[in-house]
Amino acid sequence: MHALILTDDGPRFTTDYPEPALTGEARIRLSLGGICATDLELVSGYMGFTGVLGHEWVGVVEEASEPDLVGRRVVGEINCPCRICATCLAGRPTHCPHRTVLGIAGRNGAFAERFSLPVDNLFVVPDAVPDEAAVFVEPLAAALQILVQAHIKPTQRVVVLGLGRLGQLCARVLALSGAEVTGVSRTEAKRSLLPSGIATAHPDDVAPGADVVVDCTGSAAGMALAARLVRPGGRVVLKTTVHDPLPVSPTMWVIDEVTVIGSRCGPFGPALRLLETGAVDPRPLITGRASLEDGVDALTEAARPGSIKVLLEP
Amino acid sequence: MHALILTDDGPRFTTDYPEPALTGEARIRLSLGGICATDLELVSGYMGFTGVLGHEWVGVVEEASEPDLVGRRVVGEINCPCRICATCLAGRPTHCPHRTVLGIAGRNGAFAERFSLPVDNLFVVPDAVPDEAAVFVEPLAAALQILVQAHIKPTQRVVVLGLGRLGQLCARVLALSGAEVTGVSRTEAKRSLLPSGIATAHPDDVAPGADVVVDCTGSAAGMALAARLVRPGGRVVLKTTVHDPLPVSPTMWVIDEVTVIGSRCGPFGPALRLLETGAVDPRPLITGRASLEDGVDALTEAARPGSIKVLLEP
Repeated sequence: MHALILTDDGPRFTTDYPEPALTGEARIRLSLGGICATDLELVSGYMGFTGVLGHEWVGVVEEASEPDLVGRRVVGEINCPCRICATCLAGRPTHCPHRTVLGIAGRNGAFAERFSLPVDNLFVVPDAVPDEAAVFVEPLAAALQILVQAHIKPTQRVVVLGLGRLGQLCARVLALSGAEVTGVSRTEAKRSLLPSGIATAHPDDVAPGADVVVDCTGSAAGMALAARLVRPGGRVVLKTTVHDPLPVSPTMWVIDEVTVIGSRCGPFGPALRLLETGAVDPRPLITGRASLEDGVDALTEAARPGSIKVLLEP
Repeated sequence: MHALILTDDGPRFTTDYPEPALTGEARIRLSLGGICATDLELVSGYMGFTGVLGHEWVGVVEEASEPDLVGRRVVGEINCPCRICATCLAGRPTHCPHRTVLGIAGRNGAFAERFSLPVDNLFVVPDAVPDEAAVFVEPLAAALQILVQAHIKPTQRVVVLGLGRLGQLCARVLALSGAEVTGVSRTEAKRSLLPSGIATAHPDDVAPGADVVVDCTGSAAGMALAARLVRPGGRVVLKTTVHDPLPVSPTMWVIDEVTVIGSRCGPFGPALRLLETGAVDPRPLITGRASLEDGVDALTEAARPGSIKVLLEP
């Protein structure tokens, strides 16, 4: 089958990748995939992953132990926990130390004609949500994880640093709380993508003293800026992985009693609800669309500074 | 008057320091002072402070606008906020950007025969609390601040790294929650100071996967160890100021969704209650006692590895 794979020699499109084995999991036919910053990091060698790329997707179930699911349009949780270890039994399956992660760790991803996931991971997509919106459910869930971990009050001032793929969604989700949200980017084109009602600023022009600063820059400099902008007693949410050591001394966190919250994957159910009600419409973030066959070029396009979300079709 | 002061040439005892000016604040006669790690950092040039040292103390009010206070035994909040700026009016006076801090920033400290503090900062010491316990109220309040900032559950496992002045109090306070607390130090003498019911361990022997890790080591290495010991989804509390950049990459905080909580000063009222009920008895932590006259030697003694709390008498 067609697949966009990562090999030790880099990403490659292939027409003869083996079909997913039938292991009791659901088999899904890809409808639409989305390229994420993590895919680009994987291509750079992050985490040593090889195999089929892709963890943002919407598809149709071809085969499943639960007959009701067959033929349904679904999205799915990317973490596949063992469900029997102490971490899973403590209610933290997304942190299962034995987990595989779709297209990221120990498991082939979704950028292929067909792929498999446990039935328990799947969520049926409501009819009102088109594929072009449903394909955003994974990063939208990651944005919502901020609200799972931190109580953001309607009276607070929130700054989102970086208006790329994830920052755009974080700004939209945080604004739903009623908080005063400012999205920060050096790029006018990215700032202008935010809907009216969400303020924007250049990094040099942000007022300090924010109650909450969310770092979606994917750079160590973002963390340093976050430390400067947060108020004493405030919170910094880290949404992106940075491989450099931290460029700030934690002393000011102690003196100013700042809380730093690492935040990763989030809940799919609430994300689907926000897409269904239309409270979040991610479709303006689509800046490119390509076939799997042109997937290597699409990865390059997704890495271009002006690009936000590039979609892949089988 | 006698005073232990910090000059540009280091700490010095003097017999002719000017009496505190009468500015509408309470004038207090020192009964007992305590040397803190922050004093030792100030002596090393931290924050460029000069003047009378000392912010851990118990004393007797000699003069105050509130006549009921005169002659009473008191302790006092060390942060002196302006009480009129936006931060103060938002209910965060300990973070007032205009604050002075007793013996730390912009205000002479308590290691003198007499010193002054605003009446609003003072707390009358209950009769049941001897001076030798009351002098610990400031660091005990700082330990309690962990419980102000973080809900520690009786069912959780908590590791306290570093069993110096503050670590000893943090371990005792956290154990009151019913949590399973382990105090960690390289030094057997410090481990053996912890009351029975609190586990102890050498840093090489601590099981990872703790729900909460409190770093009281005062070293960058402590932060790195904390990052290794905390479980995914767990919390690291930073209690000590480190001037080196952080030796860990924040990537694991994101992937493991760790929350890092900077924590500084805490509430005096609850600290006095715990001293009054006897739930915390800090007196076994006293390892030395000297007069102000011998204060410079006492600072050296307090910096010795085996030392915990050195008290100063006028």
